[in-house]
Amino acid sequence: MSEFRHHRRVEFAETDLAGIVHFSMIFRYMEEAEHAMWRAAGLSINDRSNDLGWPRVSAACEFRNPLFFEDEFEVWVRLAAERTRALDYEFTLVRGETVIAVGTMTSVCVRKTADGRMKATEVPLDIVSKLRGR
Amino acid sequence: MSEFRHHRRVEFAETDLAGIVHFSMIFRYMEEAEHAMWRAAGLSINDRSNDLGWPRVSAACEFRNPLFFEDEFEVWVRLAAERTRALDYEFTLVRGETVIAVGTMTSVCVRKTADGRMKATEVPLDIVSKLRGR
Amino acid sequence: MSEFRHHRRVEFAETDLAGIVHFSMIFRYMEEAEHAMWRAAGLSINDRSNDLGWPRVSAACEFRNPLFFEDEFEVWVRLAAERTRALDYEFTLVRGETVIAVGTMTSVCVRKTADGRMKATEVPLDIVSKLRGR
Amino acid sequence: MSEFRHHRRVEFAETDLAGIVHFSMIFRYMEEAEHAMWRAAGLSINDRSNDLGWPRVSAACEFRNPLFFEDEFEVWVRLAAERTRALDYEFTLVRGETVIAVGTMTSVCVRKTADGRMKATEVPLDIVSKLRGR
Repeated sequence: MSEFRHHRRVEFAETDLAGIVHFSMIFRYMEEAEHAMWRAAGLSINDRSNDLGWPRVSAACEFRNPLFFEDEFEVWVRLAAERTRALDYEFTLVRGETVIAVGTMTSVCVRKTADGRMKATEVPLDIVSKLRGR
Repeated sequence: MSEFRHHRRVEFAETDLAGIVHFSMIFRYMEEAEHAMWRAAGLSINDRSNDLGWPRVSAACEFRNPLFFEDEFEVWVRLAAERTRALDYEFTLVRGETVIAVGTMTSVCVRKTADGRMKATEVPLDIVSKLRGR
Repeated sequence: MSEFRHHRRVEFAETDLAGIVHFSMIFRYMEEAEHAMWRAAGLSINDRSNDLGWPRVSAACEFRNPLFFEDEFEVWVRLAAERTRALDYEFTLVRGETVIAVGTMTSVCVRKTADGRMKATEVPLDIVSKLRGR
Repeated sequence: MSEFRHHRRVEFAETDLAGIVHFSMIFRYMEEAEHAMWRAAGLSINDRSNDLGWPRVSAACEFRNPLFFEDEFEVWVRLAAERTRALDYEFTLVRGETVIAVGTMTSVCVRKTADGRMKATEVPLDIVSKLRGR
């Protein structure tokens, strides 16, 4: 599978008083790219036709260069390791030739039970297949 | 009913590149004060023991003075008009003697139906009574 | 001047526990459309080649219908009244045939002085001309 | 140095459609605790009396349990490694006995130069001393 590329522009409210994008937004940009990759695969992370959820269990990022208001950039995302009950994503944010950030996120697949709890379950094969087959 | 006063400090991520709090945050501060007023009245805006919801139907604000990182301020909130199916709030944000903003918000009382829709309903009298009786 | 239309999709982090877009985001969507209109006119709201700023003095919105995760919508924005030292914007958010929200925002034109203060000044004619002439 | 403890309550706009706090907010909570620790040490991360800045170079978090609307929780933060040009923080978020998340963040000390660039510099000893001496 080639990586998925999501295009974005920095909005005003995403900057802070240091004049650059707040670091917490970088994680949101990564998530937006992840969800766009799901849509490109004909899926939705919030599919009301099943009872699956995808809570994050970890996220990490190295911030290499600042990102400024109105900058256009891309988030490259790809599925990393094959795991039974989790999806590992790898991300690279780039503005032209400049790497802004590199990060990883892991979500586990859970089934929502009738009492509102979440129970880890296996990632459905057709979802992995669609995400990889895009 | 005297007005309810909510104390808050500006966080870094709430500022923008202009060096001041982003105007959209002012609306969030007003909402935080509203919810704190509900808690002070022994209520929660998200009470899972009933099927009521409180979607906003309008919000407006005049921004009089900028608010800066680490500023401490208060949001004064009070219930305005008595209406059957809605709650009207009035807000004033102050930092010391300086008025930062004045605003209004209106929420309607809705009952969530089995099919996920929302239907306007009368505001329960005990809720109004508790909010006014604080 | 015809109105400017800005296309957008709802992101996950923009929703709240009620399952819909948080009302404060609607104001951010309106701002994004405003800034996109400036770019379409060859301008930037944050032009480092001058010392102008555009703080908001008011914002108001009526919320007519909820907006959901992954919904695609448009923000229509147009310059309303002609005023000497301020820009008045009118906004309509629509998803297909459904009006989500209608709003207004006013920004004043300020010149940043050497001591960091802001002083109201006249809106440069070429900016109005470009915004109207798009 | 004992760890610093920052108390917080979850606000409505910080939740998402899954009914829990969005993971990007966890990073903001960690930052809020960091800045509160600076204030407790008589410092500000945005001290206008010097030309220092503290951009993040990395952030990571494991999310152990969900956090819900109106939950009260604490963020425990402490300075980890001693390094010449950077500050390493360790964070634990707890709600009562439940660990919500554990994380780390690293900021580098930079001096802002006249042309707007940032140059890594040594962390002033009095800052480390005050942060550790609280």
